Amino acid sequence: MKFSIGRTAFTKGLNTVSRAISTKTTIPILTGLKIVAGPDGLVLTGSDADISIETTLKADDPDNMLVIESEGAIVLPARFFTDIVKKLPKDTITLEVGENFQTMITSGQSSFTINGLDANNYPHLPEIQTNDSIPLAADLFKQIISQTVVAVSNQESRPILTGVHFVISENHVMAVATDSHRLSQRKVTLETPIEGAYNFVIPGKSLTELSRMIDDTQEAVTLTVTENQALFTIGNTLFYSRLLEGNYPDTTRLIPDSYDTRVAFDAPELLAAIERASLLSHESRNNVVKITVDPDKKSVTIYGNSPDVGNVEEDLEPKNLEGNQLEISFNPDYMKDALRSFSQSTINIDFTSALRPFTLTPTEDSDSFVQLITPIRTF
Amino acid sequence: MKFSIGRTAFTKGLNTVSRAISTKTTIPILTGLKIVAGPDGLVLTGSDADISIETTLKADDPDNMLVIESEGAIVLPARFFTDIVKKLPKDTITLEVGENFQTMITSGQSSFTINGLDANNYPHLPEIQTNDSIPLAADLFKQIISQTVVAVSNQESRPILTGVHFVISENHVMAVATDSHRLSQRKVTLETPIEGAYNFVIPGKSLTELSRMIDDTQEAVTLTVTENQALFTIGNTLFYSRLLEGNYPDTTRLIPDSYDTRVAFDAPELLAAIERASLLSHESRNNVVKITVDPDKKSVTIYGNSPDVGNVEEDLEPKNLEGNQLEISFNPDYMKDALRSFSQSTINIDFTSALRPFTLTPTEDSDSFVQLITPIRTF
Repeated sequence: MKFSIGRTAFTKGLNTVSRAISTKTTIPILTGLKIVAGPDGLVLTGSDADISIETTLKADDPDNMLVIESEGAIVLPARFFTDIVKKLPKDTITLEVGENFQTMITSGQSSFTINGLDANNYPHLPEIQTNDSIPLAADLFKQIISQTVVAVSNQESRPILTGVHFVISENHVMAVATDSHRLSQRKVTLETPIEGAYNFVIPGKSLTELSRMIDDTQEAVTLTVTENQALFTIGNTLFYSRLLEGNYPDTTRLIPDSYDTRVAFDAPELLAAIERASLLSHESRNNVVKITVDPDKKSVTIYGNSPDVGNVEEDLEPKNLEGNQLEISFNPDYMKDALRSFSQSTINIDFTSALRPFTLTPTEDSDSFVQLITPIRTF
Repeated sequence: MKFSIGRTAFTKGLNTVSRAISTKTTIPILTGLKIVAGPDGLVLTGSDADISIETTLKADDPDNMLVIESEGAIVLPARFFTDIVKKLPKDTITLEVGENFQTMITSGQSSFTINGLDANNYPHLPEIQTNDSIPLAADLFKQIISQTVVAVSNQESRPILTGVHFVISENHVMAVATDSHRLSQRKVTLETPIEGAYNFVIPGKSLTELSRMIDDTQEAVTLTVTENQALFTIGNTLFYSRLLEGNYPDTTRLIPDSYDTRVAFDAPELLAAIERASLLSHESRNNVVKITVDPDKKSVTIYGNSPDVGNVEEDLEPKNLEGNQLEISFNPDYMKDALRSFSQSTINIDFTSALRPFTLTPTEDSDSFVQLITPIRTF
């Protein structure tokens, strides 16, 4: 195998597939990245067994400055090889595989010889028949991910809760995540109805990594789902993720359909107040912030307290206030995560009682997005 | 004590004195910062016993928006209090000390009450009689620091080597540091000769912290030295550092006064090549890079090698080359630190033999700055 390529395009491709490569893998060859020079161009692959990323640098794209002299394949140590490519002196680099997988990388006067591995020993990517695929607008899909992954569980005790549950049929997409203390549910409507119906759970970690790969220049992401794999196609890059096995709990019953007290806030203003109150709650053993609502006095007050350090009290200015008097305590970190996930600025918080979960929804298009938080009992 | 102040000016002052405050101190009150409201304005103090910083927010500076209603003093938990001030909602904040050092901080609708400490228990700053002081141009002093601290020792086995040795008399300033593997010596000429002669060692850590405090708007730094303390005055801020006790070793004999081989390089070009070679040496147990010089062939070549990963070889293009043939090995990290410390772009590297220290000097004004590196024996 021998080819020369532009350093900028090559570095970009290496960075893309490196997202999937972990130094902590138990399969030694997966610390490497696979390079295949073929008739279409250069195919780079990285994988940590859960996530695999494959990107193609096309021979006919002049930006790649790619010239393949002879075809072939090699696996090179990922981190180390990427560092070398970044530091090479000239804009063009040449890579040639010699005997015993010894790979020579040259650029200007600089010449590296590094030990490669046989590409035949690299695991095969899952095979996915791309019959039915779901097109998604890239910016909307990124929003769905950011709004739901906040509520994903970090605990491996219930593995299914470490993922986001997607239910897709006709032109409806519903994504929901819960760690059993809070829940986030997002609904969107597709422009064109799709064939078939899908119900699957993708690891939150995969979605976070995928979201980082979708930049503003991307318009569309195409999703293909099989029994245990999801494949996202973004331009010349394929992103594979395993799906989580098992049944996701029924979350539809958890969201209350009525309220006794409703307060409307400017989300960034409330967020700033919660951040101040949490300065004190974080110094305390139980990280709790209290809010009192008094519709008669038109007052909402927030309290944070730490016996060692002091306390904070702040009167809020709600946009609207209706219903019954209430005093409720909650984890301010859940509230901060929830408030940061709203793109809309005005939200309603709907309470039923001090011990029942409360919800945050945008005042407009309120059915599309709901964040639910379970309060903390302090009495 | 009661005063109100502009949040921006107050935050800036808190950030300045917080540089001296460590959470790891063994003296509990030093995790706090002292605030004194007096006739001139507000004096903030932070200290970790080695370094103390005092800054004054003047009452007559309109930018401070400072109104002192009643004078007094308090010590507040530094990190926590600074976090609060940063997150307060309005541009003006009011601070009032009540009974039992309970301190109320208000801004807009937000009201914090935090537990303060008696300022009488805060340690006194060293008293320095400011008879003789040495004025230094701020940018030049920052350069002296950055060029010498690279060679300071991190090892507490010889405490004196953890500092930079200053020798000042008439209009000469010499600063030198060595960790016994490398040495850096900088000489500057003062515009105006000073009275007296000074010979002292300041901890490298103090100088690094001090350097961060000198921003581009500062024109001058004034230095005052006593037997065991140095005081730097930067505008309205005083920076105290203890001096290291003991005699600094005589370093003048270490710098060779002749050479057998001299190679001139563009420093950034050589740095880039050393960085590439060190990619491989860092993967090896002994972090060594080799350079060969052949004046007859007009060639200089650099080598890096790791048995596990591979090797690198690069022909360099020296600006000039004279003297004898040579092969020498060294720690590339020392070379990188040295090369980064040159503001000049062209440097001479002077060698005597493969086992003797070699020096890096700027081709112009070569007497003002020298970096010395001890080679590594590989045969």
